[in-house]
Formats: sequence, C-alpha cells, structure tokens
Amino acid sequence: MRDQFHEDLDQISDQLVELTRLAGSAISRATTALLDADVHLAESVIEADRKLDEIRVELDNRSIDLLARQQPVATDLRIVVTAMHMSSDLERMGDLARHVAKVARLRTPDSAVPPQLRAHIVQMGQVAEAIVAKCGSIIASKDVVAAVALDKDDDAMDELHRQLFAALLDENTSWTRNELLDLTLIGRYYERFADHAVSVARRVVYLVTGEYDGALDREDEEDERGADDLPGLARRVG
Amino acid sequence: MRDQFHEDLDQISDQLVELTRLAGSAISRATTALLDADVHLAESVIEADRKLDEIRVELDNRSIDLLARQQPVATDLRIVVTAMHMSSDLERMGDLARHVAKVARLRTPDSAVPPQLRAHIVQMGQVAEAIVAKCGSIIASKDVVAAVALDKDDDAMDELHRQLFAALLDENTSWTRNELLDLTLIGRYYERFADHAVSVARRVVYLVTGEYDGALDREDEEDERGADDLPGLARRVG
Repeated sequence: MRDQFHEDLDQISDQLVELTRLAGSAISRATTALLDADVHLAESVIEADRKLDEIRVELDNRSIDLLARQQPVATDLRIVVTAMHMSSDLERMGDLARHVAKVARLRTPDSAVPPQLRAHIVQMGQVAEAIVAKCGSIIASKDVVAAVALDKDDDAMDELHRQLFAALLDENTSWTRNELLDLTLIGRYYERFADHAVSVARRVVYLVTGEYDGALDREDEEDERGADDLPGLARRVG
Repeated sequence: MRDQFHEDLDQISDQLVELTRLAGSAISRATTALLDADVHLAESVIEADRKLDEIRVELDNRSIDLLARQQPVATDLRIVVTAMHMSSDLERMGDLARHVAKVARLRTPDSAVPPQLRAHIVQMGQVAEAIVAKCGSIIASKDVVAAVALDKDDDAMDELHRQLFAALLDENTSWTRNELLDLTLIGRYYERFADHAVSVARRVVYLVTGEYDGALDREDEEDERGADDLPGLARRVG
C-alpha cells in the first residue's frame, strides 16, 4: 500500500494531467473558432477557461496543504513545489488559448485569418495540440526521453511562427492593418503556448533527474542560441 | 531579537525588492534604448537580465531551503510560497524588458518607434517604471492601500495600450509593416509588464489580509469587466 504522501502526490499529478487535457481542448477549439469564425465556440472556450483556473487554485491549495501536513523535505519537497510551477504554466496555456478565442469572437462574422494563411494557422493549432497532449503523457509517465524530445515540437512551432511573420512582411502580399495586428498577436499566443509546454516538460526532467535540461523558459534560450526574437525576420524580408 | 525564520523571510523580502529594482532599471533602459536606437544600451539590458534570472533561482532555492529547515505551517507557509510566485512575476517582468531591448537592438541604427509615437512610448515607459518602483515599496512596506492603488497605474497603462492600437489602426496614418508588427509586440510587452506588477501587489495584499483583491492575473480580469482584449479597438477604429 502506498503512504498518504504518495497518494496525495498521485492526485496532484492527476490534476496536472487534467489541466493539460483542458488546455489541449481549449487550444483545439479556439483554433477551430478562429478559422470558422464560430462565435459560440469562441465563447465556450472563454467560459471554459474558468474551470482551468479553478483547478489550478485547487491544485495550489492541495499542494500547500500537503506541505503543511506532511512536511516533506529534499526531493519530496521539490516535487510539490515543482507541481505548483507546472500548474502555473498550464493555467497560462489556458489563458493563451482564451486570447485566441477572443480574437476569433471579435472578428465574427468574419474570420481573423485570411484564406492565404488558413493552412498555416491549422498547422500552428495542430502543433499546439500535439505538444500539450504529449505534455500530459509526460507528466503521467515521467518519461524523460519524451520530455526532452518535446523541444522538437517547439522548434516546429518556432519555425511556423517565423514563417507567419515572413508572410505578414512579404511585400507581395497585402493585408489589412487589422489582419496584421491580429496575426502578430495570434502568432505570439501560439508560440508562447508551446514555450510553456516545454517548460512543463523540463520540470518533469528536473523531477526525475534532479537537473534542468536547459533554460526554464524556452523563450529565454533564444538568446543563448544567438537567434533573434521573431520580429528579427523583418530585417531579412521586410 | 528576531528568530531565524523571520530573519530568513526578511532576506527573501530584500531579494524581492532587489528584483523590482533590477526590473525597473531594465525597463527604463530598454525604453531609452528603443527611443535612442542605442544598441549598446540595448545589449546591456539583454545581458543584465541574467542577473535577474540568477537572483530568482537563488530566491527559489532559499525558499525551498527555508521550507525544509523550518517546516512552516499556516500563514508562514503561505508567505514562503507566495514569495516564490512573486519572484516568478518579477523575473517575467525582466524578460519583457529584455524583449523591448531586443526590438531596439534589431532596428538600430534606426529607432523602432516612429517620431509620431515617441511621446506615447515615453509615457508607457514612465508608467512601467513608476509601477515597478511602487511594487518595490509595497513589498518592503506591506502597504495594502498602496498595493490596491496600483490598479490605477495599470489602468493608465491599459489606456495607453488602447491608444497605441488606435494610432496603429488610424487610417490617417501610414506605417510600414515593420513598424506595425514591432509596435504591436512592444505595446503588449509594456502592458504585460504592468499586469505582472499588479499581480505582485495583489500577492502582498493576500499576505497581509489573507484575501486576494481580484483576479491573480490582471489580464484575466478584463473578461469580468466585459472589456475586450485590446485588438478590440480594431473594430471601432479599423
């Protein structure tokens, strides 16, 4: 039989997985709402974000309660603190999906995404869905190899983000200012969504190995790699 | 004489104040770099962000160490956990200042900010500086009244953000696409900077009163107030 501490930890882990499921559903539905200019779907995403926020608060309270009752030290203590950081990342992913839904709602009956960029946004949505689904599996399985491999999905998202900026700046295209502003922000929402997923995966690596694999916030790493932030593309194509 | 626990807490509080000082210096210098197209200043902001990240890691380790050694419960436990959340907000504010600096660096020898918008960006920089300076005082003094009043500064930032979008979408103006993309992102960086400051202030309120005054993430509140996200302006002026 497992002791109380480990049973509590299992519950926390289950709630983290539930948060990945909700964030995945949110980004998937937000993408559809955006592409189909579906105001009801957009509103349901915005409304559903409350549930995510509630679970995050519950999870934090449960973690604090666990610290108070069980007084864990060393690795056990780090596990609980790390779970709180993970729930913060996952809540933020829900917020970002909500932002996408709000742009969708704002533009109905039109879609915020012009026809030429639909396929591109479909791809960004798919990468976001895949990365958060993998996040859930990684939390459940504590699979360090899968966690490290998540960087590849994030690289794919970064590349899609770069391509989106290039398309927005391509002199052979013409976009309205609304389209330019909407898509600049939408691009950033998807990209940050993937960054937070990587951050969650790295916290799993840390829990298992005791070492962080790289920077905590994926975005911070771009400095190290010498890559510019994405408006950097502007210099080349603008 | 104070006991060890409270001495440790004082050190944590001092480090949080130090983080506000560094974040304030970062956003102030990033704004100057942006307006003056000063590549060296921009690079010094980008470089200095490491210091902020280091202090945040140190602060988290100190907090975890404190939990392990002192095994606080009830309010004392919540103080330590809340300090960790605050350091996360402050580190993110440093990241956002770094993003502004990176846009500045990218556009040199030109400024990313066209002459017509200089005064506006100066104002956004000033509000950002003021809000993070107040944050530092609030952490040091635990002044709940000042913490609640910080919402006013954030309202001012939101209004500046709205005006920036309105200017970008105003049909009587002409901007290059680079300018539109840069300023869309820059506007968001300043606005998020202020949101995180409000979040820090609300955590102080929570520590003193045991109650959060409003949503944890200021951004989330806009839903409650029925206000749209800022691209919302687009419908009216675009």
